[in-house]
Amino acid sequence: MHISEFGGEPAVIDLIARICDGRNKGDLVLGIGDDAALIRISDGRLLIVTTDLLVEGTHFRGDLIDPYSLGWKSVAANISDIAAMAGRPTYTFSSFALDDVEVSFLESLYHGMVDCARAYGSEIVGGDTNASKSSQVINITQLGEVAESKAVFRSGARAGDRLLVTGTLGDSKAGLEALFKYGLENAHNLYPAVVEAHLRPRPRVVEAVAAAGTGTLHAMMDISDGLAADLAKLCAASKVGAVVSTGALPVSDALRQAAYDLGLSVSELALQGGEEYELLIAAAETDVEAITEAVVKATGTPATAIGRVTAEQDVLSENPDGSISALKGGWTHFT
Amino acid sequence: MHISEFGGEPAVIDLIARICDGRNKGDLVLGIGDDAALIRISDGRLLIVTTDLLVEGTHFRGDLIDPYSLGWKSVAANISDIAAMAGRPTYTFSSFALDDVEVSFLESLYHGMVDCARAYGSEIVGGDTNASKSSQVINITQLGEVAESKAVFRSGARAGDRLLVTGTLGDSKAGLEALFKYGLENAHNLYPAVVEAHLRPRPRVVEAVAAAGTGTLHAMMDISDGLAADLAKLCAASKVGAVVSTGALPVSDALRQAAYDLGLSVSELALQGGEEYELLIAAAETDVEAITEAVVKATGTPATAIGRVTAEQDVLSENPDGSISALKGGWTHFT
Repeated sequence: MHISEFGGEPAVIDLIARICDGRNKGDLVLGIGDDAALIRISDGRLLIVTTDLLVEGTHFRGDLIDPYSLGWKSVAANISDIAAMAGRPTYTFSSFALDDVEVSFLESLYHGMVDCARAYGSEIVGGDTNASKSSQVINITQLGEVAESKAVFRSGARAGDRLLVTGTLGDSKAGLEALFKYGLENAHNLYPAVVEAHLRPRPRVVEAVAAAGTGTLHAMMDISDGLAADLAKLCAASKVGAVVSTGALPVSDALRQAAYDLGLSVSELALQGGEEYELLIAAAETDVEAITEAVVKATGTPATAIGRVTAEQDVLSENPDGSISALKGGWTHFT
Repeated sequence: MHISEFGGEPAVIDLIARICDGRNKGDLVLGIGDDAALIRISDGRLLIVTTDLLVEGTHFRGDLIDPYSLGWKSVAANISDIAAMAGRPTYTFSSFALDDVEVSFLESLYHGMVDCARAYGSEIVGGDTNASKSSQVINITQLGEVAESKAVFRSGARAGDRLLVTGTLGDSKAGLEALFKYGLENAHNLYPAVVEAHLRPRPRVVEAVAAAGTGTLHAMMDISDGLAADLAKLCAASKVGAVVSTGALPVSDALRQAAYDLGLSVSELALQGGEEYELLIAAAETDVEAITEAVVKATGTPATAIGRVTAEQDVLSENPDGSISALKGGWTHFT
């Protein structure tokens, strides 16, 4: 049997977890299956480790991203995994296998990586350099740190919680669609805000630390595969369900304009976008105001209530007309 | 200008170090340019981080290695970098981008990875799984730990030191040559010892800890690019030179047999082999006996004196006839 017939990424991760599992060490707090691993390095301090492998053709198209943005985005995606646990990025390891590119390409790539790392308090301190005869490949390993008392996982959401997201949803996907249609230069000129959101995402490190600083978060993760898919993961990890009010999803004016011009659905972009690197938070209703205030006070970034957590393990959509349906791109027992 | 015209890997690493350098943090002990980074995680404890990106066609040929060995070897190479600093492996992160392989391929790959990790005290606790439309790619990030008082770098060799290597040299390269000539199955049947040395190398973790336990090592590194090339790196880092007695290089009977059959030079295999993952150690002559005894007592692995460190910064060969020449595959001011 081939991997493609085997049940997708979840089945593959289960298989790997079965092979690797069973003899976890005492200082491992969180292992395979989450976005990052957590290792206790001393009393009350956790090391966070996350790693992403990016392959041209699968994860990016060389003609639709400039090298500086490719470097920035590769690091940003990993830093977002650190933010998802309310951690602070510390050290970045960057490896590549590239064909015989221009030296200026490599310089721009690394300037993008370093600028992103430093913008969030990290430094690039190692890696591996290789030639590749075929695809361009980049691997980032990002370390971070968090106080054990402040770490937030995706598994703590409780029935009755409110769901919050930071910033706006769907911009990155709208930017990607614009890139597909108009190419790098024209898309950037026509839709600078959403293209910028796609090429140089801003992980929510400060916002996550501010939100976790309230000491009231039940669950948190970053939105990298789209709200619907990632909310389904948060629900599965927490053994709960959710209802999202699609009318409440925060979207930018730039997204509305791009969606209109490109003939795309605003709510589909917001629900199934991906690569936003916004935060999805679950917390008790009584704590929502304090969390929202802490986040906006830290950086000006809004946090918006978009729905609630339910005991029934389905991910549902409450539509503007009041009807309830399965959340598209999520999952439900009823389909 | 393209990378290929730019001066090879050293120039690329220098470029990256210039871009990334300049704002190192207080707890970074060793950064870009070595095989692994060292980060102080508490008083007297260092975290070791190393990462390797392996691309089919550049680093391995899918038809010349079975998936179990590919997994084993990928992890072994990283664990050897931990051993090089006298560290103990702790946690392994394994990422891949594979085309639509058989599930059994993935299982064997991960069994190889896990078995190697566990053989040296590490566990696989995270990673990233991806599809690839082109090359097969594997990335390993290995963490380790070492007491700050016990860590050994490649930069501490002093004029007058003796040079030691563990085990035997060249077996892995002889195995690779046999694989090139006879293919996986036949090569393994004909030359099991050297093919095994190539496919399932044994990093010298226990030996390194035992040697460092004497408290007398001046410098250490693992031999991954061949003795001549790696000795040149150790000399450059230590700002010294070396003379190697080619007649003293430890080689196995299996290597001699394979070299004879394949028409290869024993001394060239031993000097320029690569992927041995043996240790190269520099220490004062008065400490050699204690180090050798500690290593052999720990695992039965021999450690052999192969030359000495000189103040003149050239890497030379003392040939069996007493003549001195530049070490082939090393470097010298005189060529």
